[in-house]
Amino acid sequence: MNHDSNKTQAKKLTGADIAKHNSRDSCWVIVHGRAYDVTEFLPEHPGGSKIILKYAGKDATEEFDPIHPPDTLDKYLDKSKHLGEVDMNTVEKEEKEADPEEEERQKRIANMPILEQCYNLMDFEAVAKQVMKKTAWAYYSSGADDEITMRENHSAFHKIWFRPRILVDVENIDTSTTMLGTKVSMPYYVTATALGKLGHPEGEVILTRGAHKHNIIQMIPTLASCSFDEIMDAAQAPQVQWLQLYVNKDRAVTQRIVQHAEARGCKGLFITVDAPQLGRREKDMRSKFDDVGSNVQSSSGDSVDRSQGAARAISSFIDPSLSWKDIPWFLSITKMPIVLKGVQCVEDVLRAVDLGVHGVVLSNHGGRQLDTAPSGIEILAEVMPVLRSRGLEHKIEVYIDGGVRRATDIIKALCLGAKGVGIGRPFLYAMSAYGLAGVDRAMSLLRDEMEMGMRLVGAARIEDLNPSLVDARGLANHSVPVPGDTLGLNVYDPLVGPKLKSVKERSML
Amino acid sequence: MNHDSNKTQAKKLTGADIAKHNSRDSCWVIVHGRAYDVTEFLPEHPGGSKIILKYAGKDATEEFDPIHPPDTLDKYLDKSKHLGEVDMNTVEKEEKEADPEEEERQKRIANMPILEQCYNLMDFEAVAKQVMKKTAWAYYSSGADDEITMRENHSAFHKIWFRPRILVDVENIDTSTTMLGTKVSMPYYVTATALGKLGHPEGEVILTRGAHKHNIIQMIPTLASCSFDEIMDAAQAPQVQWLQLYVNKDRAVTQRIVQHAEARGCKGLFITVDAPQLGRREKDMRSKFDDVGSNVQSSSGDSVDRSQGAARAISSFIDPSLSWKDIPWFLSITKMPIVLKGVQCVEDVLRAVDLGVHGVVLSNHGGRQLDTAPSGIEILAEVMPVLRSRGLEHKIEVYIDGGVRRATDIIKALCLGAKGVGIGRPFLYAMSAYGLAGVDRAMSLLRDEMEMGMRLVGAARIEDLNPSLVDARGLANHSVPVPGDTLGLNVYDPLVGPKLKSVKERSML
Amino acid sequence: MNHDSNKTQAKKLTGADIAKHNSRDSCWVIVHGRAYDVTEFLPEHPGGSKIILKYAGKDATEEFDPIHPPDTLDKYLDKSKHLGEVDMNTVEKEEKEADPEEEERQKRIANMPILEQCYNLMDFEAVAKQVMKKTAWAYYSSGADDEITMRENHSAFHKIWFRPRILVDVENIDTSTTMLGTKVSMPYYVTATALGKLGHPEGEVILTRGAHKHNIIQMIPTLASCSFDEIMDAAQAPQVQWLQLYVNKDRAVTQRIVQHAEARGCKGLFITVDAPQLGRREKDMRSKFDDVGSNVQSSSGDSVDRSQGAARAISSFIDPSLSWKDIPWFLSITKMPIVLKGVQCVEDVLRAVDLGVHGVVLSNHGGRQLDTAPSGIEILAEVMPVLRSRGLEHKIEVYIDGGVRRATDIIKALCLGAKGVGIGRPFLYAMSAYGLAGVDRAMSLLRDEMEMGMRLVGAARIEDLNPSLVDARGLANHSVPVPGDTLGLNVYDPLVGPKLKSVKERSML
Amino acid sequence: MNHDSNKTQAKKLTGADIAKHNSRDSCWVIVHGRAYDVTEFLPEHPGGSKIILKYAGKDATEEFDPIHPPDTLDKYLDKSKHLGEVDMNTVEKEEKEADPEEEERQKRIANMPILEQCYNLMDFEAVAKQVMKKTAWAYYSSGADDEITMRENHSAFHKIWFRPRILVDVENIDTSTTMLGTKVSMPYYVTATALGKLGHPEGEVILTRGAHKHNIIQMIPTLASCSFDEIMDAAQAPQVQWLQLYVNKDRAVTQRIVQHAEARGCKGLFITVDAPQLGRREKDMRSKFDDVGSNVQSSSGDSVDRSQGAARAISSFIDPSLSWKDIPWFLSITKMPIVLKGVQCVEDVLRAVDLGVHGVVLSNHGGRQLDTAPSGIEILAEVMPVLRSRGLEHKIEVYIDGGVRRATDIIKALCLGAKGVGIGRPFLYAMSAYGLAGVDRAMSLLRDEMEMGMRLVGAARIEDLNPSLVDARGLANHSVPVPGDTLGLNVYDPLVGPKLKSVKERSML
Repeated sequence: MNHDSNKTQAKKLTGADIAKHNSRDSCWVIVHGRAYDVTEFLPEHPGGSKIILKYAGKDATEEFDPIHPPDTLDKYLDKSKHLGEVDMNTVEKEEKEADPEEEERQKRIANMPILEQCYNLMDFEAVAKQVMKKTAWAYYSSGADDEITMRENHSAFHKIWFRPRILVDVENIDTSTTMLGTKVSMPYYVTATALGKLGHPEGEVILTRGAHKHNIIQMIPTLASCSFDEIMDAAQAPQVQWLQLYVNKDRAVTQRIVQHAEARGCKGLFITVDAPQLGRREKDMRSKFDDVGSNVQSSSGDSVDRSQGAARAISSFIDPSLSWKDIPWFLSITKMPIVLKGVQCVEDVLRAVDLGVHGVVLSNHGGRQLDTAPSGIEILAEVMPVLRSRGLEHKIEVYIDGGVRRATDIIKALCLGAKGVGIGRPFLYAMSAYGLAGVDRAMSLLRDEMEMGMRLVGAARIEDLNPSLVDARGLANHSVPVPGDTLGLNVYDPLVGPKLKSVKERSML
Repeated sequence: MNHDSNKTQAKKLTGADIAKHNSRDSCWVIVHGRAYDVTEFLPEHPGGSKIILKYAGKDATEEFDPIHPPDTLDKYLDKSKHLGEVDMNTVEKEEKEADPEEEERQKRIANMPILEQCYNLMDFEAVAKQVMKKTAWAYYSSGADDEITMRENHSAFHKIWFRPRILVDVENIDTSTTMLGTKVSMPYYVTATALGKLGHPEGEVILTRGAHKHNIIQMIPTLASCSFDEIMDAAQAPQVQWLQLYVNKDRAVTQRIVQHAEARGCKGLFITVDAPQLGRREKDMRSKFDDVGSNVQSSSGDSVDRSQGAARAISSFIDPSLSWKDIPWFLSITKMPIVLKGVQCVEDVLRAVDLGVHGVVLSNHGGRQLDTAPSGIEILAEVMPVLRSRGLEHKIEVYIDGGVRRATDIIKALCLGAKGVGIGRPFLYAMSAYGLAGVDRAMSLLRDEMEMGMRLVGAARIEDLNPSLVDARGLANHSVPVPGDTLGLNVYDPLVGPKLKSVKERSML
Repeated sequence: MNHDSNKTQAKKLTGADIAKHNSRDSCWVIVHGRAYDVTEFLPEHPGGSKIILKYAGKDATEEFDPIHPPDTLDKYLDKSKHLGEVDMNTVEKEEKEADPEEEERQKRIANMPILEQCYNLMDFEAVAKQVMKKTAWAYYSSGADDEITMRENHSAFHKIWFRPRILVDVENIDTSTTMLGTKVSMPYYVTATALGKLGHPEGEVILTRGAHKHNIIQMIPTLASCSFDEIMDAAQAPQVQWLQLYVNKDRAVTQRIVQHAEARGCKGLFITVDAPQLGRREKDMRSKFDDVGSNVQSSSGDSVDRSQGAARAISSFIDPSLSWKDIPWFLSITKMPIVLKGVQCVEDVLRAVDLGVHGVVLSNHGGRQLDTAPSGIEILAEVMPVLRSRGLEHKIEVYIDGGVRRATDIIKALCLGAKGVGIGRPFLYAMSAYGLAGVDRAMSLLRDEMEMGMRLVGAARIEDLNPSLVDARGLANHSVPVPGDTLGLNVYDPLVGPKLKSVKERSML
Repeated sequence: MNHDSNKTQAKKLTGADIAKHNSRDSCWVIVHGRAYDVTEFLPEHPGGSKIILKYAGKDATEEFDPIHPPDTLDKYLDKSKHLGEVDMNTVEKEEKEADPEEEERQKRIANMPILEQCYNLMDFEAVAKQVMKKTAWAYYSSGADDEITMRENHSAFHKIWFRPRILVDVENIDTSTTMLGTKVSMPYYVTATALGKLGHPEGEVILTRGAHKHNIIQMIPTLASCSFDEIMDAAQAPQVQWLQLYVNKDRAVTQRIVQHAEARGCKGLFITVDAPQLGRREKDMRSKFDDVGSNVQSSSGDSVDRSQGAARAISSFIDPSLSWKDIPWFLSITKMPIVLKGVQCVEDVLRAVDLGVHGVVLSNHGGRQLDTAPSGIEILAEVMPVLRSRGLEHKIEVYIDGGVRRATDIIKALCLGAKGVGIGRPFLYAMSAYGLAGVDRAMSLLRDEMEMGMRLVGAARIEDLNPSLVDARGLANHSVPVPGDTLGLNVYDPLVGPKLKSVKERSML
């Protein structure tokens, strides 16, 4: 894509040219070797002006990259503000001051466990927590408010217990199934997650390659670090991809995105319906604050700080007025099957069936939106009996996401009636820690767990999974123990076992 | 207000004059530059004589101020004991001995997080805990007995889970509602809490100003540090305030208070009915003890110590014989709507309806009265279906208080049928840590959370909140896990993930 | 009581005489200035021979005293083995080797909190834990097996929540009631606990004096350190006492005990029915082992060690064949009301009614007998509705004991239908830490809590307490949370609040 | 058993001969003084080739022994690869490098608690954890996935509470019963567990001797370290043993094993039906990795590592196609009663009854197979009422295993209808820590607990145990508490009791 305004640029700009514009009054920044005048854009920047001013007169590429797709500046900054190429040899290399935290991180990276030491999906998260940049970790790992729903998402699976069948011939296990008509090797897909380059310099295309290798569908996020086309281009036929869509206030933009995706071969349109506004993720906000926080105390609490973390910075275009009456329009502009992502109660599933959409994802957005919203697996247990009682269970494909970490979680979801499950963060963590090899191993481990799980539950094929194999009676039970009587608990003198005489006991940790 | 007995004072008293009266036999103290003979009052002092004797012959202003409204001495000490003005230049400035604990506190104050680092209501509490005086913290933060109810109040909200609706147009969120006929911007009010000057030198007027800015109603406490009129005076029209009332054994006093409040423009009378006696708050008692504790061991456990913390010291006037038969009298002496504050079961709500009171606050007094009394939100879930089944849900306004910390808590209460909720401690903590700016930010954060919460639950207006949006089935479930088998738990060797080779792991804390 | 065999002793024995008999072949010991030949008794000693051999040839008084009533030697050792008085001046004072643990304990005693710092019954336990001898603490504080029932006893009360009534005239609170016809000031009694001298040199008479002061009934234990008559003698008219009875294999002994008690004025006979064998209390056993443990490893696990702690050492006389058919006999030998102590299910309560006994104590023996036996309060909630449905609730007095620590616990029990509750360990701890003053303060605190609790629950008199004041639906719920997924929990990065910039945070602990 | 191929060996091989073959291209190892060429076997080794290559050209006996029965090489390595005897004097003694971890372990062994300090079954585990080799501990103590089921197995018993009966004559307790027609002294058997020599050099025969002493049945594992005949030979008449069977893909092998066992006098055939594939036990895998882990990072996650811990290494022969249609064949080849071990739901128990098998063991394989499979005791509570309602409760003997640690656990199982329970790991730990004496003491402790438990529950004989003695209503309740609100919990300032003035408090731990 050419920048017309720069066509006739006779001479490259120099670092010194840029450096003069280093204030709120005139603010130039360099991104990928080109200069931009963002002075007027400062107040509009969804992430706040502070973070830009930090780079006023300087090269902002490193900060810019992970959270803006490559075409952002073309799209959002008027061409008149594109100042042209910069002779990067004239730009002073910033002497990065020694950052003890970053040095510690580099040490940790040098001492990373080798990939074979990851035996399950949690292990990648454990490594990522050690080696990712703190702000990137905060963005990926944060949830809404008290992160109760985020944690409930996984722990809900522990309320479901198996009722395994024995003496079933499970020599040959077939984990393949179909989703929206596509045959896949395992009943999960890589769900959409934003800002892949925070975790890995190549971003979402790493997930594309991993998904291809394992014959898994990838859902492409609206808020990807890579552009949509880069991700599509990374696919290898006959690999299938879906599009996750945040609906823009400007429906023309949305229509363009949808129809472009269909033209490029996307096989499913997942409209996010649980995010009329992106959630408050305090871990992310706090981490952002640490990064750009002012050291002057504001004199009033009046204006809620706009440095609200990566999440809210990138989402201002989302249309909070999106409603059921928009659905027919979506059905009219594309032939792709349409799936509502983020449905959270049975009433809305029934309404979706009525409107003729092709699927729903029961989801709370990875616990990143409304805290104490129920887990997808809990909603599933509420939805399926109602669908079955009305004979609607084949009218719509029901997916869930959130908290899936073990193949047994997938099996439980399928027993309860899900067509498949979405998995997001675990692959991000695997990618952040080990790149493609990490994603590959994560998927291999899941396959290995899945075969074992199906053998042990006594089901050779996906269609053998059914509600009689699980006891989910406790799923809707949200218990909060009575707060302990601290005084009483403190005076209790706990039992201890026999002790070694004089040497240090082994701590297994 | 003039002190008649001092009108003719020719010459100011001197520090030396006062210093002679430094014993139980003759005990004079200085408060705000005036001397008082409290010898005969010693045995009657609700807070015990010890605390006064500590200041015998000295200036007691600093200790006196936070826990006595300015008109206390006029009201409770006979004019003959008002000895007149003191020439404060003659009063020896007490050489305060270095107090290491206070020095540490000053260091912590100097290093306080800036206000923008508070992202939710708990954060103010975290800061207040660090920077408040220990006795003040103990008074605000303490609850009855084992503080089980105090903690349950908040954790009860976690037993309620949302059933959010999607695809509702939530572009414009209106959080306004009415309470006892007053239009307010948010469905909460600042509830009455005692002794505001323990947290901030200006006391409750800070809350008045914050409430005005956010168009929120403030309930004025009987046990305020500021006088009632000071708090009324701090309001700015058309700001609305309510009066919280502890009923005096002397009904004439009570009538005077009520009618004065009405005359001054109070718009609601909240009669506290859960405190015929103020609860035992051991954290407060223990903190008080540390302060004035004797170092001689009493020879007998006979007399229960009267140094029972701030709470009980200030409440001896409250009438424990107050009963249902008094209610008609209250209805007869004022036109203000009358609300019973501290109702705790549905039977009593029905009785309140019968008697024609205008509202009830389902409340356990912030967990400060009867331990293992249920949370307001739990009582609400019991009350509303009964009111609805009898067609009484519009006959009375039902409020709750206790444990509200998130806007989602407010939304849950409104879904279950509350007209509004009271919030107390969080604003005290915000005020104690950051003054008016803190209160302001706390209210701003709540508003921000509220808008987001309503968007995400799928409700654009307060009247859209209804019981179908929540799953409160687990609310009345009070589970106490079976005590663990220590031996068995100790021998379990927990799983650990992959480890870094030789460097220190990052602790995210 | 004269020792006939010693009547004619011409000359006192000397320390040297005794010291020769210092082996298993000839073992003499001194107790209270008299010598005894216990050689033949060694294998029969219920506490094992090791503990005696430790004192062979020496003065054993200090060890002997707390666990044997004064008349033990007269009762159990043939007069021929009573060797006569010893000239104690000739007995070498044992150079006690410096015992670092004991020295630490003495330091702790010197630094004990003063009595006024105990604000509730748990506080005495906290102090006792610090200042008691380890073996004594182990005996008092231990329970059966994993001590699950012992802890459940108290935590069960936290499953019961109040439904308080407001606007009841609670100016005058009357906590008095009657038990087995005796008017008492509070609805609890001091239940029987063994070996009072382990905690205080004077033993159970301390409790007698405390009970008198507060007009509370004391139940006298069979296994007291003081003799029955000493405890009766310590009472002051019109103080009432009851007798707790372990039934001896020799019924003549039992009859003698019962009729003696009645003759002395005992007003109730509590037959322990939950202890055909005293439970295994491993904390006690382990503590005993530390004390007398051999340092040679036994070559086989064949013989279960007889050093099984104080509990089992003193109980060999108890008759495990005691059965329902013995009850009429008890009714025939005494006019005292008979109460079965340790009933644990409704079926047995009904049988007790049929047989005409006057009361039952629903109890699991303080969690010291069968682990995972239910708490008394839970059994009560099962029993009373059945009694009421059969019109039997006035045919028998129903008591509970176990885990009572707060007056609210007592109120809950009375609401559910108990006539009164027994309290044991808390008074032992108060006595062990502070003697009579401790017991006195413990009882004063309970009275203070009781008045407050009744006020706040809205009941002025004991008879106003009824089932509608509590919600006990969760009482029979024994939940054990699903074991946590360690890996998943470990990778969770918990939210943290705002932090001070550079100084140490205050820990409130 | 003679090795024909070596009959004519003229001259022993030397260490130097072997040492040359130290690579993947030619790999010889010494086991018990004989050399073997395992070059071609390397890729087939179920435990992976790495572990063998570690010993290429060396003596592998120490590593080989615990995980291979003595006849392994004869069975699985072609005779042509048996190279003959080695002159062990010529074999260089491996200079073991100082292993700090092993040195620490030896110190711990030297300071072991003496056997009498073990008061219950958990205590042996506590000691074993300190003194076992880490890999052996990992193999014994590991479970599937998150080890939730493994821990649930024991904690499930805590959801069952007793309803004890009093005043039953329990002087004489008879704990004997019959299992598959054999009279035993206690209602448990030693269940099959693999690789006994990991814990003790003599292996499973230790358990045989212990079982004999206590008149308990031992179940002989297929995957024993000792050969089947060694274990049978260690029995002393009239000791009874059973055979646990993993069914081989080659049914002729299985038939040979079964008929040999019957010929040798085995009295029961327990066919394992819960392990078509051995579970993933990550603790074991991780421990194995530490042992043989490569230090080069694999370039891809493609191949799941074959070093999957001891469990999966030894199980490749098991037939995953075993199904219900195979059962009649088993009934046709043996007269031994046939029991299905690992049944997990009532539907399968009914099917087993239909097919005429003689018993089932309700079991999840010690939590080592499918995670979140229910405990045996929970399945039992589901199964027995169904069997009873169909009059089938005497048609089949129902056993359970998993998590039994206390005699009260056994009593609960019998109350619910089990004929007996299997106990596995506790005896392994007792054996690993203390050898036969440990097993003996463990069994003595169980007997002691059992007698006490029956006395206290009010049952003199096994047949007196019945469902009315327990409250198992909560057994199927799998609760996972709502994740805590970290921020809120952190700001809570917990109550503390009275404190000593200046000295260190005693920690009872």
